[in-house]
This record gives sequence, structure tokens and C-alpha cells, in this order.
Amino acid sequence: MTNRINLAAGDTVLLIDRKKRRYLIDLADGGEFHSHSGVLAHDSMIGHPEGTTFRSTRGMVFIAVRPTLTDYILKMPRGAQVIYPKDIGPILVLADIYPGARVLESGLGSGALSTGLLRVGAEITGYEIREDFESRARENVSRFLGTGALDHYQTAVRDVYEGIDETDLDRVILDLPEPWRVVPLARDALRIGGIFLAYTPSIIQASQLSEALADSPFGMVETLEVLNRTWHVEGNAVRPDHRMVAHTGFLTHARLLVE
Amino acid sequence: MTNRINLAAGDTVLLIDRKKRRYLIDLADGGEFHSHSGVLAHDSMIGHPEGTTFRSTRGMVFIAVRPTLTDYILKMPRGAQVIYPKDIGPILVLADIYPGARVLESGLGSGALSTGLLRVGAEITGYEIREDFESRARENVSRFLGTGALDHYQTAVRDVYEGIDETDLDRVILDLPEPWRVVPLARDALRIGGIFLAYTPSIIQASQLSEALADSPFGMVETLEVLNRTWHVEGNAVRPDHRMVAHTGFLTHARLLVE
Amino acid sequence: MTNRINLAAGDTVLLIDRKKRRYLIDLADGGEFHSHSGVLAHDSMIGHPEGTTFRSTRGMVFIAVRPTLTDYILKMPRGAQVIYPKDIGPILVLADIYPGARVLESGLGSGALSTGLLRVGAEITGYEIREDFESRARENVSRFLGTGALDHYQTAVRDVYEGIDETDLDRVILDLPEPWRVVPLARDALRIGGIFLAYTPSIIQASQLSEALADSPFGMVETLEVLNRTWHVEGNAVRPDHRMVAHTGFLTHARLLVE
Amino acid sequence: MTNRINLAAGDTVLLIDRKKRRYLIDLADGGEFHSHSGVLAHDSMIGHPEGTTFRSTRGMVFIAVRPTLTDYILKMPRGAQVIYPKDIGPILVLADIYPGARVLESGLGSGALSTGLLRVGAEITGYEIREDFESRARENVSRFLGTGALDHYQTAVRDVYEGIDETDLDRVILDLPEPWRVVPLARDALRIGGIFLAYTPSIIQASQLSEALADSPFGMVETLEVLNRTWHVEGNAVRPDHRMVAHTGFLTHARLLVE
Repeated sequence: MTNRINLAAGDTVLLIDRKKRRYLIDLADGGEFHSHSGVLAHDSMIGHPEGTTFRSTRGMVFIAVRPTLTDYILKMPRGAQVIYPKDIGPILVLADIYPGARVLESGLGSGALSTGLLRVGAEITGYEIREDFESRARENVSRFLGTGALDHYQTAVRDVYEGIDETDLDRVILDLPEPWRVVPLARDALRIGGIFLAYTPSIIQASQLSEALADSPFGMVETLEVLNRTWHVEGNAVRPDHRMVAHTGFLTHARLLVE
Repeated sequence: MTNRINLAAGDTVLLIDRKKRRYLIDLADGGEFHSHSGVLAHDSMIGHPEGTTFRSTRGMVFIAVRPTLTDYILKMPRGAQVIYPKDIGPILVLADIYPGARVLESGLGSGALSTGLLRVGAEITGYEIREDFESRARENVSRFLGTGALDHYQTAVRDVYEGIDETDLDRVILDLPEPWRVVPLARDALRIGGIFLAYTPSIIQASQLSEALADSPFGMVETLEVLNRTWHVEGNAVRPDHRMVAHTGFLTHARLLVE
Repeated sequence: MTNRINLAAGDTVLLIDRKKRRYLIDLADGGEFHSHSGVLAHDSMIGHPEGTTFRSTRGMVFIAVRPTLTDYILKMPRGAQVIYPKDIGPILVLADIYPGARVLESGLGSGALSTGLLRVGAEITGYEIREDFESRARENVSRFLGTGALDHYQTAVRDVYEGIDETDLDRVILDLPEPWRVVPLARDALRIGGIFLAYTPSIIQASQLSEALADSPFGMVETLEVLNRTWHVEGNAVRPDHRMVAHTGFLTHARLLVE
Repeated sequence: MTNRINLAAGDTVLLIDRKKRRYLIDLADGGEFHSHSGVLAHDSMIGHPEGTTFRSTRGMVFIAVRPTLTDYILKMPRGAQVIYPKDIGPILVLADIYPGARVLESGLGSGALSTGLLRVGAEITGYEIREDFESRARENVSRFLGTGALDHYQTAVRDVYEGIDETDLDRVILDLPEPWRVVPLARDALRIGGIFLAYTPSIIQASQLSEALADSPFGMVETLEVLNRTWHVEGNAVRPDHRMVAHTGFLTHARLLVE
């Protein structure tokens, strides 16, 4: 993302139509966006400020903006289950991320959380057992943040259960099925005072992880879930939206103490 | 916060006792922490790694750690209502904050949100009408982040309703009673594509703000609230905690588009 | 609903297929249930106990049970927005309904709430401005509870804003756009100590109603909303369902006190 | 509860003071209510309509009303953990209770759920292993509903895990630690189509129960939790209350099908 006003070739852009449908495209000289509402030539957008409304050949209207982190994650290509923006904000604060924080992240999935962590300046070592996931995560990171972001994103195709090479890490952040198996490894890899955080879909996983943490030098353990409730606000019709995402995952976090 | 292992004079430290009571202290040579469970000499902690367990004169046990952003905000001095860590994480993502983002923040309250924004590298201009709040916000920021953080925190005792001097801002973030009055000012102060976000305790405020945004060049408006639900996880007793914070504020955000 | 075991002609029955799709049918001698999975003859079900699994001509399997109140309301014909079972249970308790309680209900919508109130023995006077709604409400009530229930369900096509004829009512329960207009009427129609309850989709309505109640002899006013969160419980995958109903309506209730 | 207007000796009455503190008392000729705000003579209330405001000797003001089911349960004497009104309404609907429904309830705790079930006309057989709980449940039931309610409340001091004597029950409703042990017993005690419902504080209990139900002829199994969110509605300050009850128990229900 950039502060330049005008859209340029190479920019990743979000198009939003009247029905709030969203499309993520990469502007290219001579490129075209095709929808069932006609064609929108990239050249008609290039050179104009973001936030401008454009019209397709069949008269459909689109707003073009550079995506925010949230816009981007919700539309970027994914194979794995993604960690949603709803959880990324709380993770940034619960794991107390800051520019330069040395983070081990595993697994990478589609790179959503990586993008969020890099966005605020973390230095990530990423372990991912699936090579296709690792590749897509790197592509997703660099498409939003630019290729320079890859300097802060050292990834490897490897299984974190088999060991962590890094030491003196500030944070270990996990999105994988058996985080309790990483507890003894994280203990050796984290500096004293470092933070361990795991995202788990099932409360049974959170429970099993809590038991492992209780039998370890980690302390200050907490499990929580985060709910976002969006509202419909229009004149006198002011009410929560009728449906919401009721669950994504549980967040369990702890700090490494002296034994 | 620092990566040094050992506690030193000048460090802000969180003490946690057996009953999970928490105390925020500043270590000083010769200093003493007094509780009804006896005295803990600062010198007995200085030089030891954080995460160590210390014992007071009357045998009470305390863990001493450097506070995370969350620990700090929950215990720092406050006069005004504070924006809680529960909302700060979502604000970081909804306002899409990144190192170097130029943010206008008003009002500052006790500096909780400022601390969270500066923590991830934002450049803040802060307007606050109460001089005592501005002072405390600066003190709270520098106590956690160090005095160097003040280089990125330009504050003024002034009323944002009367005008914004800055232009080309990336974000405007508000925690004040009538954010709708700032909409036309933010429109001139933000760059195209910039993000406006307001925190309001009452849904009536959010509703009034939404109307003002609907009559402005801002678009992509959303109002939401964030709920954190903590869990009690102990053996077979796995359940949400019996009570929770049910409400702090509504978050309304929008982007500046081309008219 | 009946305690008879065996299904009989005239019974309203819920069919559930393997994919949990649900169908509400009325058994008739010689009748047939047609689905894209083949035909199920009513006669093949009649005389068998409810809870039996039946097989269609094309081998699709259906469980046939008499519907519970919840099953019924979710599948009965509706035109108007319905009050869901999620809110009916709380309304029974907040309005403190009991067999013989004299309730004025307006509007009737599709009769969902009426069915729930009659189910536990209330005596209802129902006002509904739309004749088609009144008819369907009566049909829906008698289909589930039997025609005998209509003895306790005196309905009229009339506008409650224009006045209430009844006096000494135990409860007034409203599902209509401007419940504050009924406050002075309910005051005259309810006995001292009686309960007023209104269901409103928008918080602005609840707010306007609360103001009217504050300017009236009603007291002990409360507004709340009810959320149901269903869980996916299957082996080690134990988690809330991914999506939920986030909003239906706000419930505001009060009691008539002596001025 | 009665429809009589005037308060009489023998009535159970709720007193509410200016600070919304609530007291449950039984009116008696010559009785006195003592608070640190002075004395209120029962005789000064007897003969006056409920909903009247009375004044103590030291000038404190109290509203006196007959309690609703909710008022009563929240103030009645309890030893055991109580099932709250928040859950009783949903239980009435999920278990599809109606006048005359034959319900086995175990354990009885303080009689809160019994009072709610009897309130709408259920016929209860109650098993409770603790004699003191059984006594208090009976006292609590008859204090609110009158001694006539005991005709519909057959209780015994016995352990439901050891067997159920009743057959052809319409519903089995459990609030005890190991509801899965009751599944095979409930299967024999319920009529086909009958409903089984259990309240469990821990999700681990709900999970273990679900497994037992999956290995039984019960079907249509669902686990859910119910959340009530109260609102502060006062002028332009319209927001959820700051704190709420985040958890009481999980409700798991199922129906007996033909094997």
C-alpha cells in the first residue's frame, strides 16, 4: 500500500460495485476487468486517483480503491483456512507485536496472518509443511506489501513439530492442529518473557494446549474468543445485522517465565 | 519494552501475586514495593531475569515481568475513560495502521490508544482539549515506550471541532462526543483513500455519525462492536468465564473517496 | 401435539432427510409426499410410531416425527416476519405467562408467538390490522394445537392504536412498529401489577418506547436482546457453529405500578 | 401469584428501593421489614394495591409488587447453583413444555427450574439425591405458586443414575454432573417422540453427552447456549450494559426415535 494518490500499473486495486460485490485486481497497461456487467479497461483507471468511480462498457459503476489489510485478506487467493482480520487485530495486541519483533510463525496457511504481522513491522521466520502453502503465502505477502516485505519474511518448508532452530525469539505464533507439541520447543526458542500464542478452531485443542502449558514454565495463560458484531445503521433502522460469524477460532496465549 | 533479560532500575514492571492481583511499579535503586503482604525491595529484583518469582518480607510470592501493551494499559494511571486493548487490536486493523502512517488522533484521554498506535510505528498528531489529559497521555506513552516515542507523538491542547491544521493525513481516529462535527474537517485533512474511524459509547452517536458520513464523500462505512469472551479451562471444567465485558464502544469507520 | 404413539391421518408431521432438510406435511389417507428423491405414500406412515424412518420410492430415507413448537414455527407458512422460538421462550418468562393469564397480543403476524403463548395455556385476545394475517395466524394456531385452541384465541381485525376494549388484562404483548403509542392504552387496559412487553427490531424503537414508559406509571423497565449460539459437537471437533443469527429484535418490558 | 390487586397477609412481596436493591418478604400481620434505612411495617402495606410506593420510618422509599417468576427466582433462598430465568425460558420452548406434560426432572437443586415448569402447567416427578435440596425445592415451589402446586410435584430423595421407575414420560430434564449415564434410562422411561434435555456447565460434559446420545436411539441432537444482553437506554445514552452474564450452562436436547 502506498500514499500515492493516483492509480498506476502494478497496483493491486479493489473494485466495488453497487451491490457491494468486491473484486481484487492488479492493474496492467492494456489490461481489462471483465464482469457480466461489461468491461472496464485498466487504462481508464490508471492515472486517476483512487476512490474514483468508474463505469464499465455496459454502464455498471465501480469504485476503485487500494485495499486495506482487511479488504485484501478477504479477497486474496487462499487454499487453507485463513485467519480472518477479526482475529488478526486481537492477535497483534495479545502477542504485543511491534516493529522489529522476532516472530516464529507456523503454519503459514495462505499468509493472512503473516501479512498482518509484517504490516506492523514484525520480522518473521515462517515454518510451513506444505510447499504450495508456503509459495502462496509469499505471493500474497508481496502482492499487498511489495517485494521488499520478503526481506522480513524468512520462510521454510518444514515441520515445526520436529524442532525450532531459532533462539531468543520474541514471539511464537501457531496455527496448526497440535500446538501442545510445540510447547517444549517454544520454551527453548523463546527468550524469557516471550509470548506464545496459538489459534485453534476447537475448544478441545485449546483445552489440551492449556494442560501442556500448565505443565511447563509458561504462565499467565488465557484462552479467549473474539466476536465482531456489525450493525445496520440507516435512518431509524438501527440494529445489529441479522447474521454474523459466530466462530473462527480460540486464541490461547502465555508468557515464558523463569522456572 | 525491551528484549533485555534482566530487570534494571528504570524498568516498568508488572508484579502478579498468587491471587492474580496485579501491580505496576517502576524499579529504582533502593526502592520498595509495599503491600499488606510485606515489603519487596526493588534491589532484590534488579539484575534478575524478568519472569522470576520473588518473595516479600512476609512470604508473599510475586512474579515480576515487563508488562505487555495489554498489561500496561489495564494498570496505567487514567482519569478519562480508556480505550481498552479489546478495541485497540481491531482499531489497528480496521484503520489499517502501519509504521509511518500519519494519524490524527483526538481526544487522547489517558493515552491508551496512542500507546497502541505508537507501539506499531504510527506517527501521531494528537489534539486534546484538556491539558491534564494531554500531560498524562504523554507520560503514559513515554513510560511504556520510552521517551523516544515522543518524537512520533506531536500533541497539542486544542479543540478538533475548531479545525485541523494537518493535511494529507493517512488516518483520522476519534474518541470524542460528537464525531460527526469532525467529518467535514477530516475530509479536508485526509488524503484520498484515507481512513476515518470513531469510537463512540452510544449507538445514537454511531447513528448520527453514519448520517453525517452518508452526506459526505466518505464511503465504505461500517459500524461494528467487538466482544471478547474469555474461557475458564481447567481439567474437565471447560466453559466461558461467568461474566464478561459486554460493551465498551461502537467502532464506525469509512474511507475518503473522490466526490 | 398428542401423546399418541402412532401417526394418524390428520396429523401434522415433520419429515427430516439425511441432509437435515425439513418438510412439514399433513397426513391424509391416500396422500403423497413428493420430493426430488421420490415419493413417500402417507399410507406407508399412517399407523406407524412417530420417530420411525421411512424410505421413498427412490430410496431416500426420512425420519417422521410430530413437530415440537420450535420445529413447527420454523416451517409453518408465514407472510409477516415471525417471532422466532429463540425469543418466544424468553418472552414466556419475561412476561411471566401461566395457564389462564389474560393476554392482549397485537399484531399477530403469522401466529408464531400466539402459538407459543397458547401452548402454555394463555387466554389471548388478538388484534391484527391485516385480515390475511389474522386468518393465517388462526390457521397456524389450530394446525399445531388443534381447533380447541381457538376457544382461547379471540381475534379481531382492528388497529390497537385506536383503543383497547379489554380491561383487567394480565399482560399486553406487542409486535408492531410504534409500541409507544400503545403505552397510555395499555395503562388503562392492564390491571395493576400487569406486564407490558414489546418486541422491536430497531434499537431506536426500543429507545422511543423507553421514553414513553418513563413518562408513564409503568416502572421496572428493561430492554434486552437474546442470542442463541449453537455448537458443533463431534468427536474432538467441539466449537460454536461458524454462523449464527445475530439479531431478531429487542425485548422491552415493564410493569404497571400505582401512580 | 394472584390477580388480586391488594396486598394481603401471606403474600410474598418484592420490595425495590431507589437504588434498585431488591428484597423478598412474606407479609404477616404485625410483621416488620428492617433495613438500614429504617423499618417498614407490613400492616402499612397490607390492604394497599401492589405497585404502591411505601415509605420507611427513616424516609426510604420502596415499591412493593408481587414478584414475577424471574424476580422470585433471583431472590429466593438457594444452596445449590440455580438455573437462571435466562435459561428457563429457552428450556420451556426447547423441551416444548405444555400444561399436563409429564416431566421427569433431576436434580432439583433449589427448585428454580421446577417453579418455571410448574408455572406453565407441567406435571413433575422430581428426583434429588440431597434431602435438604429436595425440601428447599418444595418450599420454594409452594411459596411462589401456592401449596396447590405440590399436587403436581411428586418428589423423591433418590439417585436417578440408579434407575427411573416412571414410563411413558413426555420429557426428561436433567441438571446433574453426568447426564450421559441417564441416556439409557431415559430411553426406557420416555415415550417415543419424547424429549431429553440436559443443562451442563462445562462443554466437556456436553461433548460427552453428545457422544452417548449418538450411540443411542435418540436423534435430532443439538447443543446451544443462550446469552442475554441487557441495554442501558436513557436519552441519547443508548448502549449495552457494560457487563453481562457470559455463561451459565450449555443446553443439549434430543428426541427419542424408533431404533
